[in-house]
Formats: sequence, structure tokens, C-alpha cells
Amino acid sequence: GLVAGAGRLLIVGAGTSFHAGLLGHYYLSRLAGLLGHPVVASEHKVYTPGVDGETVVVAVSQSGETYDTLEAVREWRSRGARVIGVTNVVGSALDREADVTLYLRAGPEIGVAATKTFLAQAILLQTLSIAAAGEAGRLTPGETRELTGVLEGAPDVARRAILASEGAAREAASLLKGAGSMYIIGRGLGGRLAMEAALKVKEVSYIHAEAYPAGESKHGPIALVEPGFKVYVVATSDSPEVMGNAIEMRARGASVTVVAPSDLQLDTPEGIEVLKMPPTGGETLLDPYSLTPYFQLLAYHLAVARGYDPDKPRNLAKTVTVE
Amino acid sequence: GLVAGAGRLLIVGAGTSFHAGLLGHYYLSRLAGLLGHPVVASEHKVYTPGVDGETVVVAVSQSGETYDTLEAVREWRSRGARVIGVTNVVGSALDREADVTLYLRAGPEIGVAATKTFLAQAILLQTLSIAAAGEAGRLTPGETRELTGVLEGAPDVARRAILASEGAAREAASLLKGAGSMYIIGRGLGGRLAMEAALKVKEVSYIHAEAYPAGESKHGPIALVEPGFKVYVVATSDSPEVMGNAIEMRARGASVTVVAPSDLQLDTPEGIEVLKMPPTGGETLLDPYSLTPYFQLLAYHLAVARGYDPDKPRNLAKTVTVE
Repeated sequence: GLVAGAGRLLIVGAGTSFHAGLLGHYYLSRLAGLLGHPVVASEHKVYTPGVDGETVVVAVSQSGETYDTLEAVREWRSRGARVIGVTNVVGSALDREADVTLYLRAGPEIGVAATKTFLAQAILLQTLSIAAAGEAGRLTPGETRELTGVLEGAPDVARRAILASEGAAREAASLLKGAGSMYIIGRGLGGRLAMEAALKVKEVSYIHAEAYPAGESKHGPIALVEPGFKVYVVATSDSPEVMGNAIEMRARGASVTVVAPSDLQLDTPEGIEVLKMPPTGGETLLDPYSLTPYFQLLAYHLAVARGYDPDKPRNLAKTVTVE
Repeated sequence: GLVAGAGRLLIVGAGTSFHAGLLGHYYLSRLAGLLGHPVVASEHKVYTPGVDGETVVVAVSQSGETYDTLEAVREWRSRGARVIGVTNVVGSALDREADVTLYLRAGPEIGVAATKTFLAQAILLQTLSIAAAGEAGRLTPGETRELTGVLEGAPDVARRAILASEGAAREAASLLKGAGSMYIIGRGLGGRLAMEAALKVKEVSYIHAEAYPAGESKHGPIALVEPGFKVYVVATSDSPEVMGNAIEMRARGASVTVVAPSDLQLDTPEGIEVLKMPPTGGETLLDPYSLTPYFQLLAYHLAVARGYDPDKPRNLAKTVTVE
């Protein structure tokens, strides 16, 4: 009842946890019609003047100790907000600060670059969105059960995605290891998955991958595309029209790879590579599990191909507990 | 009354107009405590399920003909939303669709890369934010007059910023013309100005500049910083603590330039270049006028130094009237 009845809904996190929050924002809006505000934790002060006793905060932190996220939670609680924590660590600071905690139960995340916890955060936030949609009267009890059933297929989709991606990611890495920079774009859900994909590539391979909503291309970013520039397109069930952007990029000479569930109907002209990932039956709830592993493995293989240790990226700590 | 009384507030635009919308979102939140949702026009479908008769839309489009923005406006109007248009073109499609229109009156914008219209959009959205804050009881009539008076200084600050930037931008361009990519970062208002700065550099110089909120650095992006990597820091009156991020970047060997109003107190250790722009008296309302011209001129001089025509970037049309 907390989420569906919120006067204002803030979803806060940093890095990968922020990207999971973007997924939460997406599903809360699409399924439940709840317009939450995704907030980068270090930017929390921008939102503070609008926080009051009607505000509900969904705070996402794998470690439960992220400094900026805790700062946001404390400041907003002092103004009366109630807090739902989403964390992997029972007894963490976020767990203790939150009114309600949802636990990832994903096991310890040891690598600095979060991987399994991203999809664990996604499934918790999807579950929360389905429940909120039910309470808001946007889904019948039957539909709620049906979507929950769809989610039960997520682990199998993720498992098959890893198998389908391993060879393709290794091969792409050996071709791309010398790239200076690239775009990773998508529309709707795909744009949000692209954000996390670009972060993984940056943080372990040190190649400058940038994500943005594909529909923004023609408003500026496409200008820098020239022959050979690498573009990945994350094609999700909600946005097959992203192929229009892929075709524009290709027409400017870009080397374009579309990553899509195998059962998504796409116009695929010659010259554009399409990597077919596990089918989702058109369910956007399953897209994260079908499409994310490829990019995690791509980042991994890029790091290895470039001679870096993907478990210990330079300049980064596992948990950012200082400002 | 429309904005201050809105049940939901959506601010929509594409490219530069979206970035102006981010400024509008910032000031509406900081001054009026109104948490609007900044929406990339091509992503409007994500927000549609939450739109109803209590929704107010601020739609920003220089030309008033941007396809995605008009699509959003039409879809949301059909669900009962009321629309405030912000456009430069009297009689444009947006002007005709809107319930109320605010005109930029900036004169024709001829270059493909929007420049003067960005600051004209900013000042209209700032004025709207001040008025909304007054109506929401967040500012007294005296404070409202005072802030409006501050804004009257904006043209002078912008004029002085152009003079202060010209030489520095030309010099930086001759050093940076061979760069493959760079970061432009900021916190709070500075992060939003960085978005537009990066877009200008991309669209006319074809150097891959990426903007992101500086507080996200330690959550991943800083990993790709290595000796010589170029980082610009946009330091605004609300966020002098961004120097902490500048220092971290420098410690990893980055070539860091901070662009800041001359009267902003900053810790500036050796090895970090600080470009002093016109003073703002600590008024965040004036930061856009003090800091934006440098980046517009940098993009211009980078284009010229690299042999490109800054008025006619490849792959782009002035107005995007197709999907």
C-alpha cells in the first residue's frame, strides 16, 4: 500500500543501483501509472524541497552502505518521508534506516562491477511494480498472478542468455578491443538497459561507451557517427521502432549491432548485425534477463582482451561510503 | 496557477530543448518544491499511463514543430492534460496545440546547433519557476520581485561571458582538437549545464563528449580516466563541492579544467585549471548565463580547428519533424 498510495514517489540509487531504479521507474509507470522520480543519489538535494510526509522513497543499494543514498534517505526521512529499502545486505545501514526492506538474497557480490545484483534488483522492483499496479486497480488479481508467473521464468531466460552470449561477446571483444568510444542506445526499456550496459563497458574495459535514448540521436548525437563508429542497439519488446535509429546509424557508416530477443519482429536490412537472445514472448518484464548478460560478458571479454583485470577495475572501490 | 496547482507536472522536449527542460525541472524543484518529471520527447510513451486531467505539461520546442514533442503533447492532451508551450515560433504547431504559449522572442535560430535559444528557453523557464514558487507560497511577493530583478542581469552576464570565453575557448580548442573523447561533469545545476555543453561539442566538433552527474564518477565512470584524459567540470553556485570530483579526476592523471563564476569560492589545488567566468553573486539563476557561452564557443572553435563547418553539422537537420 505504501507505493500505490504515495503522494510523491522517489526512487534513489547510485551507479548500477540507480540503473535498477530506472527500471523500477519504468515498470511503475507502465504497469501502475505511478510517475516516480528516479534520483541519482548524489543529486538528492535537488529534490529535497518537494519532499514531505506524503513522500515514499524506494532506496536501492546493493551494499546498503552507499554514502549518498544513505544521505538522501536520512534527509528525506527527517522531512517525513517513508522509506522502502532494496538491499543485498541484512543489517546494513539502509536496512536499519528503512521502514520496510526488500532483500535481494543474491549472495555476496564480490566483483567491483555489479552484475548478478543488477538483475536481482530488477526482479524485486518488477515485483513491487506488479503489486503496486494491483493495489492501484490497474491489474486484476488474475493479471497480477499471470505477470508474477511470467517473472518466474526470468532465471531460465537469464541462464539461456548467458549461454547464447558467451561466444558472441568474446568474438565482438576481439574486434572491438581497439575502439576508443561507442554508443549504446535504446528506446523505452532498451534505453534504460543501455545505461547499465555502457556503465559495465566503461568500468571494466575503459572503453568510452555512452548510452542515451535512441530518439535523441537526430537531435545531436548522430553528428559524430562516421564510418566504422561502433553502435549497439538494445531492442526491447516495447520498442521495435528502435530499428529506425539503427538504420539511420548504419546509413552514416556506423558498425551497428542490434541485441534483441529472438522472437521480436524486426525489420533487419542488410549490413546490420542482429544478435538473437532468448525469446521473451513479447513480455517486457523478461527483456532485462534476455539482453543484459550479453553486455556484461562483452565488458568482461573486452577487459580481458585489453589486458585488464575485470574483477578489479582501477580507480574504483566496491562500496562508496564517502561523499 | 496552472503550474503551481498541477497534480502532475511533465516537462518535455528533445535535444537542447530537453536540456532547457532539465533547467526548468531544477528551478521548479529548488524554488517552488514542485517535482516535475523531465521527459525526453521520444520517450513519452513511458509516462502516458500516469497522465490524467490533473496533469500539466510544459512543452519546450524552439521551432514548435519537433515531431516527438508534438506527439507527446497530442497524446497527453487526449488524456486531459493541459499544455504550456515554450517556443520561438508564433503560429507553430506547438503554439496552436498549447493552452498557453510562452514565446522566446529570440529571433530566428539559423544554425543547426541551438545556441541563443537555449538561454532564452532557460530564462522563460526560470521566470515560470519564480512565478510558480510565488503562487505555491514558497516566495513572498518581495522575494519574487527580487529574483525577477536578479534575472534582469542575465543578458549582461551572458555578454560578459562571451567576452571572457572567446580567447580561452580558442586556445583550448587548439589543444583539444585531436582528443577522441572527454567528460563534462557537474553537480546540481552544473550537471544539467554539462548535458548541453556535451551536446554542443558532439554535434559540431564530432568529439565524443559525455556529460553525467559528477557524483556518479566513483560508481563507475572514473575507471576510464587515465593520464591525459580530458575532463571539464562545470562548477555552479549550488555545488562548490564538485571540486572534490575535480581533485579525484586530477589524482588519476586527468587534464582537468573547471569553469566557474569568478566569485565562487573553490578549493583549487595545483594542477587544475580554473577558468573564471563572470560573477553571479552566488545566484544560481545566473549560472547558466555565466557558464554556457564558454562551452558554445569551445564547440565552435573545436569545429573550426578540426576543419568542420559549425553551422552545418553532418547528419543533422535544423528541425526534426519526422519520427
